This record gives sequence, structure tokens and C-alpha cells, in this order.
Amino acid sequence: MSAKKASTAAAAPAFITPDALLAHWQGHRGLTRRVIDAFPDDQLYTFSLGGLRTFGEMANELLAIASPMVQGLVTGDWEEYSPQGVDSKQALLELWDESTGEIADFWSQLPADGFAKTVTAFGQFTGPVHWQILYAIDNEIHHRGQGYVYLRALGIAPPAFYER
Amino acid sequence: MSAKKASTAAAAPAFITPDALLAHWQGHRGLTRRVIDAFPDDQLYTFSLGGLRTFGEMANELLAIASPMVQGLVTGDWEEYSPQGVDSKQALLELWDESTGEIADFWSQLPADGFAKTVTAFGQFTGPVHWQILYAIDNEIHHRGQGYVYLRALGIAPPAFYER
Repeated sequence: MSAKKASTAAAAPAFITPDALLAHWQGHRGLTRRVIDAFPDDQLYTFSLGGLRTFGEMANELLAIASPMVQGLVTGDWEEYSPQGVDSKQALLELWDESTGEIADFWSQLPADGFAKTVTAFGQFTGPVHWQILYAIDNEIHHRGQGYVYLRALGIAPPAFYER
Repeated sequence: MSAKKASTAAAAPAFITPDALLAHWQGHRGLTRRVIDAFPDDQLYTFSLGGLRTFGEMANELLAIASPMVQGLVTGDWEEYSPQGVDSKQALLELWDESTGEIADFWSQLPADGFAKTVTAFGQFTGPVHWQILYAIDNEIHHRGQGYVYLRALGIAPPAFYER
């Protein structure tokens, strides 16, 4: 068996590499930041539809998942899930930017061969590392989509979904 | 250099494998199907908020992207993007299930080493294959999040986001 054949057999095929997935996530985070910023200060933590939370409260949830998730995956130390009581656009955007930097820092410490490993996040959610991270991203997209409806209902054109 | 070292050098690290990504997508498709099904027949193509499209019309868009996308990636033949004029829940659910089967069939024909290759989808969107597929999934999550707001505004509890 040649080295090339051994290589094909040994390595799991990649749908996407860790670096490309981080870039994909950061693109989403940039879009979510623009959606937060598109809300008027006095509507971000007050306006909602259908009895759902305000978009500000949803963003507080996203903050409590994203960076703590990647930090927990690197260190194995998990804090309990606990959103902070942020209630202003300025404070939210500052924490958002801080989180984005933390995610990049911790991401570089994730072992490249560890994404299929099963772990328990926040002491309660068990699944492969890639599943944990996709959950954080998918949950961000899900709530941001709800933010788009809020913005439209407020008469505000949201940023383009396809621009990252 | 040993075969093992050659292997490590040759293979791109995987955040997630193609098989696991398909399973992830199919989990999302199952959830989206339950969201479609949660709408009353007479609201799916009539109810909307903020001047956005109905959830039925959004689902027609998703149908026109998902299976045609994977088919185009396999064959290199791209039809123009053209949503069908579906306007009933029963017809939508039938096409949804048909699409889910097509996606699985075409997925098995995608070359395992081709996900980083740059292609142009639908004659107009250029990027790596993994980017094209993630766009289809992310767009589904985005619009489904909007469907959650519609359901809540209609007084209907949507299916749990974390159940796939």
C-alpha cells in the first residue's frame, strides 16, 4: 500500500475544515452584529411579537452560548449556562465584539482531530464537538431570522442575509 | 517520512465529515417539515408579518434551492433558480419529502474530496462547494426562525428547536 493510499484510508474526509468553519461563523457573527445595530436603542430590549422575547434578550442568550461553548470545549471546564443581564445596545455590542475575539483565540486551541469526539456541554448537552458548535451557530441564525421579522415590523430594512 | 506522517500532512483536517453534515441537514429538514405541518392549512400561504412573505412562500424558496443545489453540484448542470407555485400544505409536504430523498441520493454522488472546490451555483453564486451547501442550510434555518414568529403570533406552539 502506498503512502497516498494509506493517507486516504486514515483520514476522515472533510466537508469543511476547522479554519473555514470559523470563518463561516465569524461571517454570521458580523451579520448578527449588524442586525443588533439596526434596532433603535429603545426597541432592542422592549419590542417583540407573538409573546417571544425581545431581540436583545435573544442576543444575550447567544452571548452566553458562543464564547463559553468554545472555551468549555478547549478547557473541559464548563460554567453553568447563565446569560448576563445586558439591557442596552452599546453594552451588547461591546460584549459581542469581545466574544468574537475570544472565539478566535479559543478556536486556535481546539485540537484539529477532536471535532468528532463526544462531550457534554454546560453539564447537560451531550454530542460530538462539531454538533455542539453547529448548535451555537444554528441557534444564532434561528434567532437572527426572528430579529429580521421584528425589524420589518418596525419598518426597518434589515441587512442583506447573504452579505457576511 | 512514515506513512502516518504523510497521511497527516496530506489530508485536510475535518471539522465535520460529509456523512455527518448530511445527517445534520436532514435533522434540520425534519424540523422544518414539522414547522410547515404546524401551520393551519388556511394560514400557511396567507399569514405574514411585517410585509414579509408567507411561510409557505418561503418554503417554496427552500424547495427551489435544496435539491436543485445538490443535483447541480453533482452534475454541473444548473437550471435557473425558479420556485414552483405550490400553494397548499399537502402539496408542499409531498414535495418536501420528495426533495429529502433526492438530496440523499445526490449526496452519495458528491466526490468526497470536492467540497473545497469553487463552483458557480445557479449560474450566479460563486464559492466553495461547502459554502454553497451551508448557504442552503443556513437559509432554511433563517426562514424557519421567521416561521416560529408567525406560529407564535397565530397562538400555536412551534416544535422544539433542539429536536431534530
